[in-house]
Amino acid sequence: MSVLPLAARATGLVGSVIDSSTSLLASQTHDIVRFAMGSPAAEAVPSAVLAEIAATALGAAAADAYGYAATEGDPPLREALLKVLEGTSDATTADRLMITAGGMQGLDLGFKMFVDPGDLVIVESPTYTNGSSTALSYQAELLEAPLDDDGLIVEQLPDLVAQAGRTPKVIYTIPTFQNPSGTTMSLRRRQLLVELANRWGSVIIDDDPYGLLRFEGGPVPSLREVAAGDPLVFSVRTFSKIIAPGLRVGWVDADPGLQQLMINAKQAMDTCTNLPAQRLVAEFLGSGALAGHLAGLRDEYRHRKHAMQQALSDHLGDIAHWTDPQGGFFLWVTLTNGVDTQQLFETALAEGVAYIPGPAFSASGRFHDALRLCFASTTPERTDLGVRRLRRAIDRGAAGQ
Amino acid sequence: MSVLPLAARATGLVGSVIDSSTSLLASQTHDIVRFAMGSPAAEAVPSAVLAEIAATALGAAAADAYGYAATEGDPPLREALLKVLEGTSDATTADRLMITAGGMQGLDLGFKMFVDPGDLVIVESPTYTNGSSTALSYQAELLEAPLDDDGLIVEQLPDLVAQAGRTPKVIYTIPTFQNPSGTTMSLRRRQLLVELANRWGSVIIDDDPYGLLRFEGGPVPSLREVAAGDPLVFSVRTFSKIIAPGLRVGWVDADPGLQQLMINAKQAMDTCTNLPAQRLVAEFLGSGALAGHLAGLRDEYRHRKHAMQQALSDHLGDIAHWTDPQGGFFLWVTLTNGVDTQQLFETALAEGVAYIPGPAFSASGRFHDALRLCFASTTPERTDLGVRRLRRAIDRGAAGQ
Repeated sequence: MSVLPLAARATGLVGSVIDSSTSLLASQTHDIVRFAMGSPAAEAVPSAVLAEIAATALGAAAADAYGYAATEGDPPLREALLKVLEGTSDATTADRLMITAGGMQGLDLGFKMFVDPGDLVIVESPTYTNGSSTALSYQAELLEAPLDDDGLIVEQLPDLVAQAGRTPKVIYTIPTFQNPSGTTMSLRRRQLLVELANRWGSVIIDDDPYGLLRFEGGPVPSLREVAAGDPLVFSVRTFSKIIAPGLRVGWVDADPGLQQLMINAKQAMDTCTNLPAQRLVAEFLGSGALAGHLAGLRDEYRHRKHAMQQALSDHLGDIAHWTDPQGGFFLWVTLTNGVDTQQLFETALAEGVAYIPGPAFSASGRFHDALRLCFASTTPERTDLGVRRLRRAIDRGAAGQ
Repeated sequence: MSVLPLAARATGLVGSVIDSSTSLLASQTHDIVRFAMGSPAAEAVPSAVLAEIAATALGAAAADAYGYAATEGDPPLREALLKVLEGTSDATTADRLMITAGGMQGLDLGFKMFVDPGDLVIVESPTYTNGSSTALSYQAELLEAPLDDDGLIVEQLPDLVAQAGRTPKVIYTIPTFQNPSGTTMSLRRRQLLVELANRWGSVIIDDDPYGLLRFEGGPVPSLREVAAGDPLVFSVRTFSKIIAPGLRVGWVDADPGLQQLMINAKQAMDTCTNLPAQRLVAEFLGSGALAGHLAGLRDEYRHRKHAMQQALSDHLGDIAHWTDPQGGFFLWVTLTNGVDTQQLFETALAEGVAYIPGPAFSASGRFHDALRLCFASTTPERTDLGVRRLRRAIDRGAAGQ
């Protein structure tokens, strides 16, 4: 039997704590309150509307819905999307637009185009693990930069870069309702980030799956808008959180000079994005249903966030603090009583509650005192139940049981 | 305005002559007989059946069809596929199976896992450009190895490798109804290839999108079967040619030891394959419709291949020779009168016929005397018309017009 000659890069294809947490979670058969995954609530997916659209858009008269799509995206979807984005901070033009297989493929495209082995990539700490994994799969060296309530502490980057002794090739940020912290980068910091990236010749990979789910506070301009057309901002967006994740449809908004390169790269990844789902999304956008759908989601998620914060106050107020997101899906909870959230995970599952432990969001395994909770996918009643179970688990953990 | 710091790898993200040919093709407004793309005939896609399935599988009662899928594939599709493959040379087990976004993503997975910058990859010459492009996107060095009527001339590989001064990390082959030549690797050569790969410690990426479309001759065992469980064979398969390309659903059959690594890698590519299309394929397979569908395709494609060979005899017999595929989509035509098929392309479009010029299938731009014709997507009447137009174009080319 041969020993397979794995690439050195294969060591970068890391499984994360998220994977092991979720596979452990999948094996559980008892009732569990699921705060772990970053999925929209099942009832938040407009599946009845999509089903109705499928009947026509994928119906017998739509024989062309199953062929190869243009690599840059199916024209009806591209047109509908441009129209929907008009007037938002993500408004864009056809020559900058690339349809992708969800936001994840947008990240893969970006890191593939900009990262050579050994290149320095700044990531937020904590950050979205599959994002930093993609950078690692191209053998980037990660530099973890801290966050506070106003997002990435951009003011600290010059010192970090000076310590590293070299400038970053890419700065990977989730500026709005950050995953996992829920924080949003202030306008001042966005301006400074664009300034620094320009000085260093770095690309900003701006990953924003949640921006349209703002339910409180005033809007902050996108990095693209702040950069005023400077090509260094590579924006990654997705329909996963606002319509449905299983469709695997997202988009990249990037400098027109990158368009052909992105087409070449995507052809060598998956040829094109699946066409039936592009047709479903195009029809959904074209029908005008998105605005009302988003308004409904915002109301519901605001309600659910407050329910989670209330539950946290009620049951964890003496041993934890947490962030206050103005949109998106996630709260970041920090325990102050010394319990290790990774060690706690199995106890929590046994008590009937799931979350993602903090170290899953750091390639160097920081944040053993923290955990991510998704408030979007559980009802207020379930949320309260889940947080009560979490408290029981923490108490058992603190008692060393 | 910044100058973007593209990765060195970006030079490997090559656009191929296929791209420029097809974009030129897309801009044509007059009637063109299209022998260029490797798409199934529109009438070969079971869109009415898929539409019927969509009504239930994606219907209002199927709310879970829009969520994230398991990264290794949706269980109903995995089960249906294992059943369909039983008794074929591609029969496999769940621990070897990975659902992908078409065959293209299977190739991306394989090259990503095995190729480091500078590694030697043997490719057939001519070969499928998007396959070799994927290898280039990981900065492989390609070694082009010639084909004859029995596929890759495996007997020549030891000499080529000796000349290269090092052994290949990967051998990329399309052993059955090869793209673009239409040839099939003989059993003897398959055995020798496995032997050589084993000696060199190389992985064989076995790309076989057409194997189920054999319409003549006897079956040849798959490389996986020849290798008898040796983990060096990494098999890439797809539903694109046998059901519908736009679904972007395919699979990889590889050593169980690679399963977790493939899951990690795919999570950093696109999280999971789109779920609605997986459900459509699962239902299609589960309904038992595939066998009859394939039988119909084989009959039709046999008929169409003979029609093309007849048209070539009638109109190009004095200035060309061509291959005789026993399945799949493609014929490879070699001109003997010195006309350059790449230079000829625009004239051919003006005459109303499209093909892919030979140099598109070679990273080093060989095969200026050759072209690929897809016989699968045109009716016999259109095929005859197209080949007559091709003759007129070649005559104009020969006359230097």
